[in-house]
Amino acid sequence: MAGTDSTRVPVEEPGPAIILVEPQLGENIGMAARAMWNCGLTDLRLVRPRGEFPNRYAIAAASGADMLIERARLFDSTAEAIADLHHVFATTARHRDMLKPIETPRSLGTTLRTLIGRGEACGVLFGKERTGLSNEDAVLAQTLVNVPLNPAYSSLNIAQAVLLIGYEWFQAGDTTPPREMPLGHTRPATAAELQGFYDQLDEALEAAQFYRTEEMRPVMWRNVRNIFQRAGLTEQEVRTLRGLVSRLAGSRK
Amino acid sequence: MAGTDSTRVPVEEPGPAIILVEPQLGENIGMAARAMWNCGLTDLRLVRPRGEFPNRYAIAAASGADMLIERARLFDSTAEAIADLHHVFATTARHRDMLKPIETPRSLGTTLRTLIGRGEACGVLFGKERTGLSNEDAVLAQTLVNVPLNPAYSSLNIAQAVLLIGYEWFQAGDTTPPREMPLGHTRPATAAELQGFYDQLDEALEAAQFYRTEEMRPVMWRNVRNIFQRAGLTEQEVRTLRGLVSRLAGSRK
Repeated sequence: MAGTDSTRVPVEEPGPAIILVEPQLGENIGMAARAMWNCGLTDLRLVRPRGEFPNRYAIAAASGADMLIERARLFDSTAEAIADLHHVFATTARHRDMLKPIETPRSLGTTLRTLIGRGEACGVLFGKERTGLSNEDAVLAQTLVNVPLNPAYSSLNIAQAVLLIGYEWFQAGDTTPPREMPLGHTRPATAAELQGFYDQLDEALEAAQFYRTEEMRPVMWRNVRNIFQRAGLTEQEVRTLRGLVSRLAGSRK
Repeated sequence: MAGTDSTRVPVEEPGPAIILVEPQLGENIGMAARAMWNCGLTDLRLVRPRGEFPNRYAIAAASGADMLIERARLFDSTAEAIADLHHVFATTARHRDMLKPIETPRSLGTTLRTLIGRGEACGVLFGKERTGLSNEDAVLAQTLVNVPLNPAYSSLNIAQAVLLIGYEWFQAGDTTPPREMPLGHTRPATAAELQGFYDQLDEALEAAQFYRTEEMRPVMWRNVRNIFQRAGLTEQEVRTLRGLVSRLAGSRK
């Protein structure tokens, strides 16, 4: 799905730091940066990325999010990368034999909003491709995060994991209504406008002998009207339908 | 994050069909299949995919989800691809000038669970790379779906869009607690076990002259105890701490 980048400079809204520990492929770093910026996150930290950094694969894969690559901070150890953080979360795919609470990404989104809303710095650790975080790195966090997925196939790449965590962060602060229908320039029809349409339709159906018997007429008419009641008609749509009925009925004569 | 594929044959649990309209790159189809199977979805439908299908890029990119590629159904038109469905949803990145309700992916997850729970077939349409669905295809749906993301950078690739929709489907039916701490072989310490540790610690602190004055002692001791109360100690941890205090206090003499 294509979108336009309306600004190149990210707004400095506080959000969790995303910390990639020993990422192997520049392309994965770039795609993680894209996923971050999709969700409004800008604080990218890298611990011992393989090879030179920044590298052209990371920048190319980052596409419109390449300023996150330029601003990414590099660290020699995970401990240094998290030194300023008040709350550290470690993503994990597998069971860890350690006594640490585990949150779902959905819960994490709300938790992060609460903590960051209080001015407390947070970060989320992601391990290297294939093996994830070492236990030594996981222990540096207070809380683990595991993404509930199909137990038969739960492997995600780094960018996908970053996207899901970032997505939950974004949604936890987003106010888009779950369901809505923007009406643009029109408005819902009033009851009077609807009744005008129903009266016209009822007459046209009677003239066209739609009602087989007088007995069945009320039920048949009620069924027809319920169809249009469910449509949530706008005043523009009522006018369209009235024209439609008029033309259909007119052509029949 | 690496995971193991414990079964190659997907379980036939009903879920929404994922319909890709005119996907251009085999690699994107393969990655979409992976995202589907991550979320337990198996019904992949393709409308006029570019080039030969299946192609080796799709199969390679699908990795452990390649059986979805083998079982994918091909159609010449979107209308044919959705013919058996009761409810069709169309993903869109941009505002469409048409009167259709728009849902968030989160709302869609719950909606899909409700409809499919009633035995009604559902499908979600995804358009081609870069331009998305045409208006002619979007109108075939009853409802649009838009992913709330950073307005400055909202472009997702097909596989990411499929992952987010699939993720919301999966979470809407998942019962993982938002937060938990599996205890494994141990159990929480009883109040008596905790008290035993506190008594030992209190004595050791007194002997080590930790309490500067008798006046301050209750407050200082309360602060120390609250630290351990918050830790939610297991009985194994209590034993560890008692040994730790014992050794520290013993070495001091």
